[in-house]
Amino acid sequence: MELWYTEEHTDNVRFSIKVKEHLYHGESEFQKIDFFDSQEFGKFFTLDGLMMVNEKDEFVYHDMIVHVPMATNPDIKNVLVIGGGDGGTVRELTRYPNVEKIDMVEIDEKVVRLSEEYLPITASKLNDPRVSLYFEDGVAFVDGLESAYDLIIVDSTDPIGPGEGLFSKAFYDNCYRALTEDGILVNQHESPYYERDAREMKRAHSKIKKLFNVSKVYQFHMPTYPSGHWLFGFASKKYDPLKDAKLDEWNKLGLKTKYYNTEIHKGSFALPSFVRDMLEEV
Amino acid sequence: MELWYTEEHTDNVRFSIKVKEHLYHGESEFQKIDFFDSQEFGKFFTLDGLMMVNEKDEFVYHDMIVHVPMATNPDIKNVLVIGGGDGGTVRELTRYPNVEKIDMVEIDEKVVRLSEEYLPITASKLNDPRVSLYFEDGVAFVDGLESAYDLIIVDSTDPIGPGEGLFSKAFYDNCYRALTEDGILVNQHESPYYERDAREMKRAHSKIKKLFNVSKVYQFHMPTYPSGHWLFGFASKKYDPLKDAKLDEWNKLGLKTKYYNTEIHKGSFALPSFVRDMLEEV
Repeated sequence: MELWYTEEHTDNVRFSIKVKEHLYHGESEFQKIDFFDSQEFGKFFTLDGLMMVNEKDEFVYHDMIVHVPMATNPDIKNVLVIGGGDGGTVRELTRYPNVEKIDMVEIDEKVVRLSEEYLPITASKLNDPRVSLYFEDGVAFVDGLESAYDLIIVDSTDPIGPGEGLFSKAFYDNCYRALTEDGILVNQHESPYYERDAREMKRAHSKIKKLFNVSKVYQFHMPTYPSGHWLFGFASKKYDPLKDAKLDEWNKLGLKTKYYNTEIHKGSFALPSFVRDMLEEV
Repeated sequence: MELWYTEEHTDNVRFSIKVKEHLYHGESEFQKIDFFDSQEFGKFFTLDGLMMVNEKDEFVYHDMIVHVPMATNPDIKNVLVIGGGDGGTVRELTRYPNVEKIDMVEIDEKVVRLSEEYLPITASKLNDPRVSLYFEDGVAFVDGLESAYDLIIVDSTDPIGPGEGLFSKAFYDNCYRALTEDGILVNQHESPYYERDAREMKRAHSKIKKLFNVSKVYQFHMPTYPSGHWLFGFASKKYDPLKDAKLDEWNKLGLKTKYYNTEIHKGSFALPSFVRDMLEEV
């Protein structure tokens, strides 16, 4: 017998992974949750049938979502992570001795508890003393906050289901207010390649760029996400991620990383012309 | 009825495309050839069942294989293309008024003739007066040549089947001799992500870097190739693709490109740490 997990990247494109074992299937208040084990990607989990995190390429995503803002401003002390239930983003943040407080707001406690059970590779640092977990809606959490964080990382799913509000203008407004004067917002920014993802990329960018002084997009290679061409948004009240980045300082920290380095920090903001054009036209 | 084309990216990973029509199936002396039409990628063709070129993302590959060396040395006049039967590489080269001669050596005439029939988007410029087509083995073609070309582009399949010799040390030796003193070699360099591709990437790099003064690797997002993380090799007797590139000059040419630009020229040489490590260890 062969067991294959298949994700529809579009109505006309499918990506399939041979599964060794279907470790868990359940449903939370918010979504369907499945954990699998596989030869190629190790353990992975899906939400509503879409690949979220796997052991083989999670390092790409978590390196790029954390180290780009942290190398831009190594003085970041207070961080808010919204989403990111697998724990990988928090894991990377805890590597910075300078960081004093990491609040993680994940709507679905079940994702966190299951990740602790099946994906210790990402969920290993949620018990760091600087980490506080809030199992709440991120949209409500940021409402009313002022100058509370130096960095907000929106580590969300696609803008369907429970992640939808994390792509709304009201949410970005509240993030802006919740940030200190030199605050940085990094968010999961979809992909330029398939039509539906590109539409969401443009919608997110058009909202964020109206709010922030600096609003850029950077790219990385994420093989298990649709098209493998994935983006994060970098928005900031003050710091430009290229001109102001403290790359030498970051290198002196001596953090060992498998994807991120200070060359790719710069290189990842160089976007293909078709992506640049799409972002400029919004 | 639904018709799906499926490629095995590894034994445990499959990529499937919904097909509107199977336009052609045949076999040449060298390989199985299929052309399809699809909603998502337009027309595409496969060799021995592996995706070669499609209308949706061919621009990525052909932009990056041509404009990176051409922007490094805009004085390139004589070019040899080995492989590239779809014609896309030649199409991009013909956009440079400075280029005087383009020799294309493709082992399989059938690929060229079928591309002319089904993929005019890439095969449209093979009748440019500067282009000469040779339906021969590229390995034999370069044997014995001396200082004949300013640029050799190896636009090959994977190193299995007819493309195998294009990854051999003897072939690279002959390319070196066939290049002028400031000659550049660009080659299809596989991918760092899946094990088999990464092995070929390392093998190719270890051979090329022993021969050339400058030997670098650059990356791009190629959604329909395994993992979407694909590489070209840039080797040269003289020019460094970063330090020596004539990016302002290239911009003055006013070529409209959908993927390449002079920012991504620089950015594409910034490799993730795990790729850099793999290339350094060979």
